[in-house]
Parts: sequence; C-alpha cells; structure tokens
Amino acid sequence: MDVVQKLQKKIAAKETLVGVIGMGYVGKSLAELVHQKNFPVIGFVREKKATNSIYTTTDASLLKTCDILLVCVQTPIDETKKPDLRYLQKSIGQISQCLRKGQLIIIESSISVGTTRNVVLPLLQQSGLTEGEDYFIAFSPERMDPGNKEYTLDQIPKVVGGLSRQSHILAVAFYEQIINKVVPVSSPETAELVKLFENTFRFINISLVNEINSYAKTHGINMWEVIDAAATKPFGFLAHYPSPGVGGHCIPVDPFYLLDDADKHGIQLRLIQESEAINDSQPRKVAQRALEILHSTYPKLQTAHVPKQASWTAPALQTEQAYAYQYAGMKGGQSSIENELVSNYRILLIGLAYKPDIDDMRESASLKIWKQLEEAGCTVSYHDPYIPVYKNMRSKDLSASVVKKQDMIIIVTKHSNIEYAKLASHGVPILDTRNIYTNGRKFSHIFNL
Amino acid sequence: MDVVQKLQKKIAAKETLVGVIGMGYVGKSLAELVHQKNFPVIGFVREKKATNSIYTTTDASLLKTCDILLVCVQTPIDETKKPDLRYLQKSIGQISQCLRKGQLIIIESSISVGTTRNVVLPLLQQSGLTEGEDYFIAFSPERMDPGNKEYTLDQIPKVVGGLSRQSHILAVAFYEQIINKVVPVSSPETAELVKLFENTFRFINISLVNEINSYAKTHGINMWEVIDAAATKPFGFLAHYPSPGVGGHCIPVDPFYLLDDADKHGIQLRLIQESEAINDSQPRKVAQRALEILHSTYPKLQTAHVPKQASWTAPALQTEQAYAYQYAGMKGGQSSIENELVSNYRILLIGLAYKPDIDDMRESASLKIWKQLEEAGCTVSYHDPYIPVYKNMRSKDLSASVVKKQDMIIIVTKHSNIEYAKLASHGVPILDTRNIYTNGRKFSHIFNL
Repeated sequence: MDVVQKLQKKIAAKETLVGVIGMGYVGKSLAELVHQKNFPVIGFVREKKATNSIYTTTDASLLKTCDILLVCVQTPIDETKKPDLRYLQKSIGQISQCLRKGQLIIIESSISVGTTRNVVLPLLQQSGLTEGEDYFIAFSPERMDPGNKEYTLDQIPKVVGGLSRQSHILAVAFYEQIINKVVPVSSPETAELVKLFENTFRFINISLVNEINSYAKTHGINMWEVIDAAATKPFGFLAHYPSPGVGGHCIPVDPFYLLDDADKHGIQLRLIQESEAINDSQPRKVAQRALEILHSTYPKLQTAHVPKQASWTAPALQTEQAYAYQYAGMKGGQSSIENELVSNYRILLIGLAYKPDIDDMRESASLKIWKQLEEAGCTVSYHDPYIPVYKNMRSKDLSASVVKKQDMIIIVTKHSNIEYAKLASHGVPILDTRNIYTNGRKFSHIFNL
Repeated sequence: MDVVQKLQKKIAAKETLVGVIGMGYVGKSLAELVHQKNFPVIGFVREKKATNSIYTTTDASLLKTCDILLVCVQTPIDETKKPDLRYLQKSIGQISQCLRKGQLIIIESSISVGTTRNVVLPLLQQSGLTEGEDYFIAFSPERMDPGNKEYTLDQIPKVVGGLSRQSHILAVAFYEQIINKVVPVSSPETAELVKLFENTFRFINISLVNEINSYAKTHGINMWEVIDAAATKPFGFLAHYPSPGVGGHCIPVDPFYLLDDADKHGIQLRLIQESEAINDSQPRKVAQRALEILHSTYPKLQTAHVPKQASWTAPALQTEQAYAYQYAGMKGGQSSIENELVSNYRILLIGLAYKPDIDDMRESASLKIWKQLEEAGCTVSYHDPYIPVYKNMRSKDLSASVVKKQDMIIIVTKHSNIEYAKLASHGVPILDTRNIYTNGRKFSHIFNL
C-alpha cells in the first residue's frame, strides 16, 4: 500500500493524529471541532496556557508524531501594511526539520496568493522529500466569524485547494470527516484568493456605506434607515452598516495581502486603496465629530470640565444638520484635530472590542478613537463587559454617578449586555456610532455618526 | 368628509383611476399590475403604440381625470453624466397645469436625493393648491429587474416616502392594494437614496470583481471559480461576476445621480469615481483583449482576413498567461487600441442586449465594444435572438458557414437560447466574457475575459 492510500485509510478510520499549530481563536475552535469529531488532536503553542479539552504542547519534536498538521498561526500585516509571514515561516521551518513520509500539511491562515506554492513548498522541500508522493500540502482558509451563533464551524463550507492531485484528495477527505460541506477548488491559489476576496468584499462595502453616510448626513437622512429599506430588496443587495472603523484580524488585514501582491505584478487595485483611505479616516472622524458636538454643547468653556446638569441646553435639529455639513466636509483629511481643538472633556468609550460580545481588541477602532481624543486633550475612560482591564485602567461601571461625571459617551461597540435605555436616561450627550437609539433624532442629546 | 378621507376611501374601494405616465418597461409592467389588481388604469404616452390590455393615450387633458398619477418617465444622464430631468419636468409641468383637489402624484423614476421636494413640489405649487391638503406627493422607486422570473413585481417590497404625513398615508394605502409588502420610510429623500444606494452597491461590486479579475489573471486563476467558492460562505458575501461592462437604465446611471448631488455639497464619493473608471474601461479591455488574441493567433497577417482552417494553431496555456499579464498591465488606460493595432478581422458579437433574454440595448457594453473594434479596423457583425435588426444590419444566424467565416466570436450577453456547445465546435476562437465554457481552459481556442 502506498503512502497516499495508507493516509487515506487512516483518515477514513479517524486514526490520524491531528496537530493544530497556533491555538488562537481559530486554532482553538478548529482543534475543538477535530476533537469533537473523534480525531486524536494536539495543539502546538508558543507558551503553555490552560485550554479546554485539548492537549497542548510547546514541544516541536512532537510535530513528527502528527499525520495531519493544520497551520493556524497568525499572519498579520506590519506597520507599513505589508504581510508579516514570520510566524508562518517559523512553523513551516519547524515542520520541515522533522518532516516524514505520510504527513499532510494544511495551511488555514490567510496568506497572499501564491504563498502556499512559493513560500511553504520550498521550505518543506528542504527536507529532501517529494510533495505529492512523500508528503502533501493544501490550503484551506478558515472562515470563522467570531460571535456568530447562527453558524457553528462545521456548518461553514470549507474551501480546499491541494498543491498536487494527491494532496487535494487527502485534504478533501480529511475535511469531509469534520465539516458538513467541502468545496474543492482547482488550486491553492484559487483557495487563497477566495479568502482574500471574501474579506475584501466586506472591506469595500463597509467603506462604501461609510462614504455614502457622509453624503446622507448632508440631507439629514439616517443611513441605517436607508440600508434597512434597501435590505428589503429580495435580490442584488447585502446590508453593511456605517461603523467607527473596521477591526479584527481579517477585514482590515486581508485586503492588504491582495494590494501587496498586486503591486508586485504592477496592478493597482484602486477600490481597495480608496477603501483604505475611507476606513482609516473613520476613527478620526468619530473623534472629530465628538469634539464638534462637545464644543457646540459647552461653547464657552473649552478647557475645564463643566457639570452639565445646570446649564446644558440641547442642540436643536438645525445644529445637528450643521454638524452634518461640517462632518461631511472633513473628508480628505484637511483638518487636524490637534491644531483646532484643545479640550479636557471627560469621555467614556463603550466597547473596546472590535465587535459585539467578544473580547478581541485587534485593530479595534476604539483604541484609535481613544488615541485621537487623548491627543486632543480629553480624559478618556471606558466600559467593556468583556475587557475588565486595559493597560492601567479598569472598565468603569455604568452607575449613574459614573455616567453623570462624563461630558460625553461614545458607543463604539454594540455589546448586547448593556442597558442602553438606562445609559441614555442620564441626559449625558451620547455619540451613537451604531445606531442603537434608532429613534435617536427625537432625543436632542443623542447623535448619530 | 375631507380630501384625504375621500381619497382613502376611494383607494380602499379600488375606485381611484390610476394614470401611469411613461409606458416604457417600468410603466407598462406597473400599469399591468395595477390593472390586474382591479384598479381602472390609463397609460400616458408620447406616441401611441399597440400595448396589451392597458388603454393608452397621448391626451394630457386626461391627466385631470386620474386620482393617482404614477410618474415612470425616463430620467437618464446626459453625455457629461449629469441628470437629465427634462422628461420628468415636462410631465410634472403638464400635471401642474390641470392639477385638481384630491390627486396623489407618486414619482417612480430614479432621481437625485431632494428632487421630489426641490423640483417636483415647486412645479406643482404653481397650481396654487396646497400639498398635503389639496393634493399629495410621494416618492416610491421602481425596483424591477428585467428578465428576473423569480420575483414578480408584486413580490418586490415597495419603499415609499411621502412629502407630508397625509401623502405618506395615502401612498402607502395605495401600494398596499397592489404590492405584497410596503416599506414606509420617513421621507422622500430617504426613499430616493434607497434606490440610488441599491444600484450603487451593484455598480461598486461589479467594478470590484472586474478589478480583482485583472489581478486573478496574473496568477492564472479563473475568477468565476473564486466567486462561486466564495458564494458558499453562508453570510457576509454576495456574488457579482466579471462582465464586459454594466448596462441598462439603472446601474450605469443611478450612481451618477449621487455623484452629481454630492459634488454640489462638496463631497467626493471616491469609490463611485473609481468604479466609474473601472467600468468605463471594460468594453475597451474586451476589445483590446480580442485584438491581442487575434494578433497572437494570426501573427503574420494583420491586414487581411485569413481563413484559419488551414494554418491556425492553438495558443498554449503559457500564451494565455502572457495575455493575462499584458491585459492586467493595460489598467490605467495608457495604451490606445487605435495607435497600436490596425486589422480588418471579422468579428461576430453574440448579444447586443445589456442582459440575457431581453431586447434592451440601453448602455449596452456590446455597442461600445463594437465601436472600439470598428475603430481598430475590424468588420463587426452580430447575433442576437431578441434584436433582429440593428441599424442597417440583421442579426446573423449561427450556421456553420457563418461562424466559420469569422476570425473571432465574442460572447457579450449570455442569452439562454443559444447553442453554445455547437458554437464552439467550429474551432473559431471565442472570447467568452461570461464564463459560459466553465472548463474553457481545456479548449485552446476559448479565452476568458
């Protein structure tokens, strides 16, 4: 029996030892699924931490014992938005050093088109073994949506592209054991592009809706109402909503894998470039809008905290529209917050996580808004039920006494376990970037993005 | 009983005479629906033509007899892509001249945000009557999708925004009689933006996929395969496909209503601008790609038609990839077809209509490709089962003798009643812009966009 048949038989019998490299959110969820589907599984980590149900190790020599290796290490972008493949290269290098016949290596991390063939393969070839005969390589992108309770991991179809025909067959056979629907594609490159394209689609559409929102405000239109009405169209439309900026490990990252490689091929991806500009400016816009509202609310006293209960007057709708014009006019980044405005307003941010009901702060807009506001002289604190401590600060409670001390509250993340009605009842101005108070126009102290 | 109650009662009893102004595709379909739902209906036309079931007239004096007027005239853009409101203004002017108490005027044509309030209302105010008391104005965008057999008109939810509260109530009451689901929104401006946003969403996403397709080709990836795999994601993605250019009366038009008005407010909508550039270049790209394939196929004889049966050699996959690079490199519009290439190839275009199985040529990419090819010296003819005659030319049949006379066939529109397998069997090079031959890479004479 040859190497392929042997591995096939082991997969069918669920006797392959599966090693998951990188036990972050993706690796951990995947390892748990593999375990749940009755495969033996080990997690490879850099530092040993307490995990549920899965055995983890820092011992790279155990890589050799695994039949299938699922590489789930992070592949971030660096400060210049170039792909940072250090973790991937290190992991593949370790695998290469102890590679043996009969191993199937599958990359799940998001990578540039061609990386499986041009980075992973050469590293593994250093072992002296032959891909497609001795060992096997495939790419299958993770498609997890943190916080999504509607689709569990095994219900999300899995796109798979093998480097050789044998690798393809083996990788498809493996995923068919753990995922309800496998989507075989003709090459790792195709699978690589599928993932990048999916998230680029989201990136572009979120940017579009932010761009149109700037325009909608000039007419006093609530963009959320527009989107919800558009979403009643039974074909040809998918709702995306305005936001203070995209966060997480996928949407703000994956488009730059495309940009970087396209650039190497002399191709300009202009829509991604424009979307980047829009997206990058969102946190600054939020901060600027907050300051504009504050300056208009407390016009005479810009350098000290003023208890608003005595003298605060609700800005009229007309003022709201005037903001809209100013706000829209900001596009292009001419104005600098630092130069225009110096204030020590007290601002409470609601939500540091990049999306609701999780504790992940990667690329979170909150942190960028925080920085902008601090640079403008504000005193910033936060409330996030999922993040009790951030740097030297604790998440504040939302008691009346805490809330009433604030000059403004900015809702950045729409966590579901917050009493929004109560929050608004104190009369402190709220900048609601998530349209939580859908009839906010009726409350003069609640402002939309 | 006041004016509002009277009209409400008449609507409830289906006794309102409904006048549909503009009996194009939209007006005709709407009039037929109104008729089918047992309202009396008249169609107002500029020139009398034979129509089904609906009485039509050119007599504007009959406008006065109608209780409800649905304005479905065309609202195109001019050569500079500015809104052309002549037809709308003319119709509203005619209504204004004979406006009477108890009339409800609803605009269905796509218009810029604010047009109902700032153009339609002032024209009707010239009558001396009062909106919201004597007569009523609402905006409710048509959302038809020509050729869509899945959703009939009454199954597509109808967005409605009235100018006054009374107008809103009346317009919603009317549409509830003929459409399964009515979506009331808070103003005509909101409804106006809903329509423009829906089509802008499509415009942007079609442009995105065309942009990514240029990139995918540099890796020899079939973008359709990528899209179909991405479409297996059960959330957060909606498939759009590469195309030779967007056509029709909505998608290439509506974004420019947004652009024009945003410009007046000093707002730049960069994603629309970039999408415009991509979209506008698609027909040129198709023509250029066709010529590149032809020059490579018949390299020595660029000024005369050569019967290919004798000497034609299939370009290898490598050549296909070389094209891909050239093709992608074209982006940005540096190269001019006219300067580079002079040829009198015979080219047959399949499909003049802008989408499958209809006869509508408005903004069709085919006509633009045709022009480009003619300017490059080619002799162009066409086949379209829905358009028997175009200018001085007849649609050619697809017999072997006709097909074999061609140097190339370009499939622009994917009409369903064409024998594509037979078409490919003659060995004439085919540029397949719609990925009809999904396994086209296996046939050396079939090329993707």
